[in-house]
Amino acid sequence: MFYIIGLGLADEKDISAKGLEIVRRAERVYLEAYTAILLVDQQVLEAYYGRPIIIADREMVESSSDSIVEGAHEKDVAFLVVGDPFSATTHTDLALRCRQHDPPIPTRTLPNASILTAIGATGLSLYNYGQTVSMVFFTENWKPSSWYDRVAENVQLGLHTLVLLDIKVKEPDLNALARGKIIYEKPRFMTVAQCAEQMIEVEEEKKALVCANEALAVGVARLGSEEQMIVAGTLEQLSQADLGKPLHSLVLIGRRMHEIEWEYVREFAIDKAVFDEIWKREYAGQA
Amino acid sequence: MFYIIGLGLADEKDISAKGLEIVRRAERVYLEAYTAILLVDQQVLEAYYGRPIIIADREMVESSSDSIVEGAHEKDVAFLVVGDPFSATTHTDLALRCRQHDPPIPTRTLPNASILTAIGATGLSLYNYGQTVSMVFFTENWKPSSWYDRVAENVQLGLHTLVLLDIKVKEPDLNALARGKIIYEKPRFMTVAQCAEQMIEVEEEKKALVCANEALAVGVARLGSEEQMIVAGTLEQLSQADLGKPLHSLVLIGRRMHEIEWEYVREFAIDKAVFDEIWKREYAGQA
Repeated sequence: MFYIIGLGLADEKDISAKGLEIVRRAERVYLEAYTAILLVDQQVLEAYYGRPIIIADREMVESSSDSIVEGAHEKDVAFLVVGDPFSATTHTDLALRCRQHDPPIPTRTLPNASILTAIGATGLSLYNYGQTVSMVFFTENWKPSSWYDRVAENVQLGLHTLVLLDIKVKEPDLNALARGKIIYEKPRFMTVAQCAEQMIEVEEEKKALVCANEALAVGVARLGSEEQMIVAGTLEQLSQADLGKPLHSLVLIGRRMHEIEWEYVREFAIDKAVFDEIWKREYAGQA
Repeated sequence: MFYIIGLGLADEKDISAKGLEIVRRAERVYLEAYTAILLVDQQVLEAYYGRPIIIADREMVESSSDSIVEGAHEKDVAFLVVGDPFSATTHTDLALRCRQHDPPIPTRTLPNASILTAIGATGLSLYNYGQTVSMVFFTENWKPSSWYDRVAENVQLGLHTLVLLDIKVKEPDLNALARGKIIYEKPRFMTVAQCAEQMIEVEEEKKALVCANEALAVGVARLGSEEQMIVAGTLEQLSQADLGKPLHSLVLIGRRMHEIEWEYVREFAIDKAVFDEIWKREYAGQA
């Protein structure tokens, strides 16, 4: 059996009791380590699970998936994924390839916590979210803004938008690559401040009032861990906020925010007076 | 510390390793048992956790929450919730009450798998969902249809809609109540077939082409368990489908369904020819 096992969000103990049993008896254990990361190192996982772990980077998953699933007809192979397995399409691809194998490889998926629901810790109801979008690091010449149209659709309906932030793990250094060398860049994780800044930058260009300076938003960091941090404010305030270590995410608040949601989320406000003033002026009574 | 601990979706072993440690040392352990259920009985949980469990019904949580949080300033109290704690607003209320307590009661939430992300097992990308809605049991005189407008908003944007289905646990029998007796009705769980039927019924009245007979949808049952079942088809086909034991959920497929999503979900089709024909006519190329 090929098991795709969600690890949850924070550390080695967020795996389910069932998942832990499988990891401890599996023939091989892989860890997908390029779409998300846990807040602890590989060594901590290996010590707790009592098993060596093979790190599966993007190249391995996309080009050598046959070696990953090899032997899973007869034996158990565990493929560990941070968060919930189906929250990233990569793993749907992997499950699809198992199904199309000849003969098909039996697979089973163990769900776990995902940022898509753990974001409920902000107090913003999961029923009031629209589409989820991703934000990538802008470069000088590449500032993709297709997310803006999707966020606009959510804003139009008064819905919240969860924005997932870019992570760069094991990216080849393009300058070195041009000289024929493969050197990997230092891992980078987008912060709430960077995301808020990029949103304001695109708003200033498109001017459709989707994510202006004064739009209310919530930044979260290390959700699900003991060092979890939640900060609410305007996008401008968040562009100055320091939420510390990764992973970060951001929620743009929709105008349908209910009074109960406001009551909960205002406790996280950088400046309650500003937050309440904007809420009363722009959001209250539109639920 | 007052711990709100997600149990995941299927059985006693879906709790996280961290959650299990807390349950085993907590002073008291409650199980919220009215917004969702696991697929195993209380006795199975108690045997595995090695602890007695106090069942918290709606009345206890809404009227006697003080007794639940009592002593959590000094000792650990565990409140277990099926799925993910923040996927139901009840638990946001409970966390809010802890915060407003004098002195405030320290709380911590342990996220876990939720139907909101486990639904990714259908192959429909979680990025392409709009708002989640709930469907309650219709009675002869009460057929609430506010969900219809929200689904219409999703349909307009071409997005998928997750429909969560009603469960009735420990509901007082109104006839008996009128005679001064409290008798509880047998638990009831809405099926995919009942949901599809109610959707078609409301469509026939409102006629906005939101959920017509031929709209494509996916029914799921017992997601995250070994007895998981996924069935795709038109709403009319699903209104005849038997997915067996609870819990069931339904996804109305949006027109932006990508070819990769279609390729995955068609494997679950009741009738692949019908599914593909409607996909090609109404959905293909709109992503």
